[in-house]
Amino acid sequence: MNISILQKERYNYNPKLPQSLCGSVDDIDIETGIPTEAISDLAELRDIFKQTYGKPIITFAKDGEKKIENSNREIKVGVILSGGQAPGGHNVIAGLFDGLKKGNPASTLYGFKGGPSGLIENKTITLTNEIIDAYRNTGGFDIIGSGRTKIETPEQFAASLETAKKLGLDAIVVIGGDDSNTNAALLAEYFLNNGTSIQVIGCPKTIDGDLKNEHIETSFGFDTACKTYSELIGNLSRDTNSAKKYWHFIKLMGRSASHIALECALQTQPNVCLISEEIEEKAMSLNQIVDQICASIVKRASNGDNFGIVLIPEGLVEFIPDIKKLIGELNDTIAAQAQEFAAITNFIDQLYWLSSRISEPSYRIMQSLPPDIAQQFLMDRDPHGNVQVSRIETEKLLIGMAEKKLAAMKEQKQYSGKFSALAHFFGYEGRCAFPSNFDADYCYSLGYSAFVLIAAGLTGYLSSVKNLIAPASQWIAGGIPLTMMMNLEQRHGSKKPVIKKALVELNGKPFKTFAQNRDTWAEKTSFLVPGAIQYFGPSEVCDSTTVTLRLEHCL
Amino acid sequence: MNISILQKERYNYNPKLPQSLCGSVDDIDIETGIPTEAISDLAELRDIFKQTYGKPIITFAKDGEKKIENSNREIKVGVILSGGQAPGGHNVIAGLFDGLKKGNPASTLYGFKGGPSGLIENKTITLTNEIIDAYRNTGGFDIIGSGRTKIETPEQFAASLETAKKLGLDAIVVIGGDDSNTNAALLAEYFLNNGTSIQVIGCPKTIDGDLKNEHIETSFGFDTACKTYSELIGNLSRDTNSAKKYWHFIKLMGRSASHIALECALQTQPNVCLISEEIEEKAMSLNQIVDQICASIVKRASNGDNFGIVLIPEGLVEFIPDIKKLIGELNDTIAAQAQEFAAITNFIDQLYWLSSRISEPSYRIMQSLPPDIAQQFLMDRDPHGNVQVSRIETEKLLIGMAEKKLAAMKEQKQYSGKFSALAHFFGYEGRCAFPSNFDADYCYSLGYSAFVLIAAGLTGYLSSVKNLIAPASQWIAGGIPLTMMMNLEQRHGSKKPVIKKALVELNGKPFKTFAQNRDTWAEKTSFLVPGAIQYFGPSEVCDSTTVTLRLEHCL
Repeated sequence: MNISILQKERYNYNPKLPQSLCGSVDDIDIETGIPTEAISDLAELRDIFKQTYGKPIITFAKDGEKKIENSNREIKVGVILSGGQAPGGHNVIAGLFDGLKKGNPASTLYGFKGGPSGLIENKTITLTNEIIDAYRNTGGFDIIGSGRTKIETPEQFAASLETAKKLGLDAIVVIGGDDSNTNAALLAEYFLNNGTSIQVIGCPKTIDGDLKNEHIETSFGFDTACKTYSELIGNLSRDTNSAKKYWHFIKLMGRSASHIALECALQTQPNVCLISEEIEEKAMSLNQIVDQICASIVKRASNGDNFGIVLIPEGLVEFIPDIKKLIGELNDTIAAQAQEFAAITNFIDQLYWLSSRISEPSYRIMQSLPPDIAQQFLMDRDPHGNVQVSRIETEKLLIGMAEKKLAAMKEQKQYSGKFSALAHFFGYEGRCAFPSNFDADYCYSLGYSAFVLIAAGLTGYLSSVKNLIAPASQWIAGGIPLTMMMNLEQRHGSKKPVIKKALVELNGKPFKTFAQNRDTWAEKTSFLVPGAIQYFGPSEVCDSTTVTLRLEHCL
Repeated sequence: MNISILQKERYNYNPKLPQSLCGSVDDIDIETGIPTEAISDLAELRDIFKQTYGKPIITFAKDGEKKIENSNREIKVGVILSGGQAPGGHNVIAGLFDGLKKGNPASTLYGFKGGPSGLIENKTITLTNEIIDAYRNTGGFDIIGSGRTKIETPEQFAASLETAKKLGLDAIVVIGGDDSNTNAALLAEYFLNNGTSIQVIGCPKTIDGDLKNEHIETSFGFDTACKTYSELIGNLSRDTNSAKKYWHFIKLMGRSASHIALECALQTQPNVCLISEEIEEKAMSLNQIVDQICASIVKRASNGDNFGIVLIPEGLVEFIPDIKKLIGELNDTIAAQAQEFAAITNFIDQLYWLSSRISEPSYRIMQSLPPDIAQQFLMDRDPHGNVQVSRIETEKLLIGMAEKKLAAMKEQKQYSGKFSALAHFFGYEGRCAFPSNFDADYCYSLGYSAFVLIAAGLTGYLSSVKNLIAPASQWIAGGIPLTMMMNLEQRHGSKKPVIKKALVELNGKPFKTFAQNRDTWAEKTSFLVPGAIQYFGPSEVCDSTTVTLRLEHCL
């Protein structure tokens, strides 16, 4: 990798820290709350997390009484980047590094290479000033790489412990999403159960924004990713408002939660934005969804506006009950007779083969889909025999269905517009952008706070920075016991402890604000064009964060 | 449309003007060069442009002797946005408006709505301060809309004249690409031939960057569009360097010239960038192109790097001689027996039908293409029976071909890597971004300069601003006679005057710089991540323009 002009300038950016973390480490005061409980399944979780269950919430402050003992001791920490990239990961590491070195210049930060497998296989690099400086305020996870390996088997836990012991680690920091942080909690428990004092601290990352609850106001990277997608959506809005001849159907990253689509809708005011959680809640059929899109198209056409913007969350199809059922039936049917099915190479023959094997409603849906998309339901199965939902081009599916419906309406003289649509998918483009000032500050604070949790001797905590709509100096840093955010969920046939995923709340202010406006947006051209993320300039432009966060936390 | 925070801030940006255009209109000095000639076909062009052929180049200066007579008279101008959007169009209009009003506050600027058809059909709005202010430094062409109608028939010319007379216009400004400016020249000639003094001035727009010659250093919008695409390419580069598992195949806008792909390659340093002009020059086959891509994939795989970036210009397929031949044969064959072909609905039968009707090499290519892409060559024909090249997913075509070749190499033990590829197309995303500071300044200067050309009583000129790598104050404004950039080209069976399109020059410094580096880039990870366009901050970040321009004009 070479260094661009912007990257050089971003090296000069000094991330802002909460007041409580500024100054000497000795000065940080540790405020301890009362013991906590999990969200549900208390008894079972208490049993799984015998050592780490129910710890108190920790808040850092100034001018209190309970200081960190021996805060300037030499500490050895290993850090892991886990899962998909999110802007700001490098700053978490930089904040952790700077905290450690401030505490004691002899302290060491190891990076585990390529994700959790780096811990299992003891693949590390020692992070030096030179290395850290080359990655400050940059996007990506390339400083040490990331990976999706999970630490699950007894052998993997044992290997992790062995690596930690070999390196003489005091603590491990896991930067990841809900699964990775669940893993961090299990690792913390495992280390204690095996008589070591090695601590484990998590940091909340996901651009999907679904690692969120009353203690985590937002996961890092969400702000930058949404701004990048909104830049592109806004540009397309301006383009179509100029050319006045295309409907852009834009699929956005976000497999299980629609936070990204919702935030982008609030930032750009498209004509239609589908929210998976609402579709599931209302048990909407694919036809009903297409009807909703066509209602906007027809209404706008009657105003002479044969153009518009539709936002679609990536995971949509799995939230449509009838499609979910279809996918399940296809998975089961094809898996059961895999060889027989594989021998049929022609789509029409495949469809005929399926006709007597899947339910009639499902078969009717298969027939109604545009043929090229229907084929995507039958191809490219994953190693478990399941269709790879992310490969289904939902945006093209909806375009094809809308074309069909509009043609029918035209015949019935219910519609007389022109419909020409273009499909887009924005996902990878936003995962590694230079973190916004907000994400740069937030991530750096999370990393620094992780260091303080380690210095304070804590384990099984998630680094936490709250009050995020205030200026950074007023942010509240501390730690949340990981067990506090857990419940038990069915996974691969057995109940597992997991951090609860946060889906879009239909009673929440962000969705309600969207819902209040969408009828207007569906008809009128109300587009907003946010433009590219700005790192310099007026504070209103370069420091403000997501609309979601503002709506959730402002009065 | 609503107003975003960035848009509000961009209203405060004051575009910079060349020194010669600052201050009072009275002070501007008009320097007149010697008579000029066309590029070729001098006699024919002199005959077509009897009134406007061979005029001198005009340069604006300060402190000279030849001032504009009666520069403060009241002037009525109509402005047209023609063709596809390019960032900065609104600023051309703002510069023109401000010049007019500075000359005389009673002067009027009409906007023709929806492109040249607005002139033909007399659909206008009067541009007021309020309207102009709402669009300063914004992207898009939505202030008055754009269109692709060409003024070609005698009736259209007559209608244009009628509109101009009705409005009492002194001049018309056409903001457009090579075709639109050719049209502007014909209109200028027509007006003079019909005994009116209505002037016509052009402004050089195209994000494709192919309206360029020794007098037009760059067409407006190219800078902003390339920065927007490079932001996304850079983000994907950072992403794949973090995840280390995907090859991103990225198609970029640019139908006939590969300037965008080349500029983006210089900004981001991808592993492979195809340049249509080189492929045509070397008469490369599709297989040779795939070989070139696979050479990089195999080399990098041997270094353990199973990831990378490939850039593909949109118009590629038409520059590959064997594919061009195939497309020609398909167009002719299918057009000749359209009904018979339309009756065949199955791809395999279509292929069989073609086998005895197209040449053997072409048939072999059809067979070698991934079936879903081969089908794109047969579907969606335009009203003339031709395949719509822009609908062919070249990026997926190349992925499919590379997969096939790599599988064959694997069998022969020549390759042992993993190949997983993702396809992208970036085009519409860049056409309506907020113009960069460079494009905001350049466009405003072009518009202001167009006003001065009008005030000076000139017609058949292109507004010109040169010396663009210097600070804006040192830019050189003036006018280039449109006939000077013309030659005759074969269009629809007869020779027509046209402004010559500028393709990528294989002897030019931008291509040579790319060619010198590409072997290294093909193997090593040399990615550059430019980040989002910045409108504020250090001048190096927010004011610098394209690498192409720097290489073409720096020593």
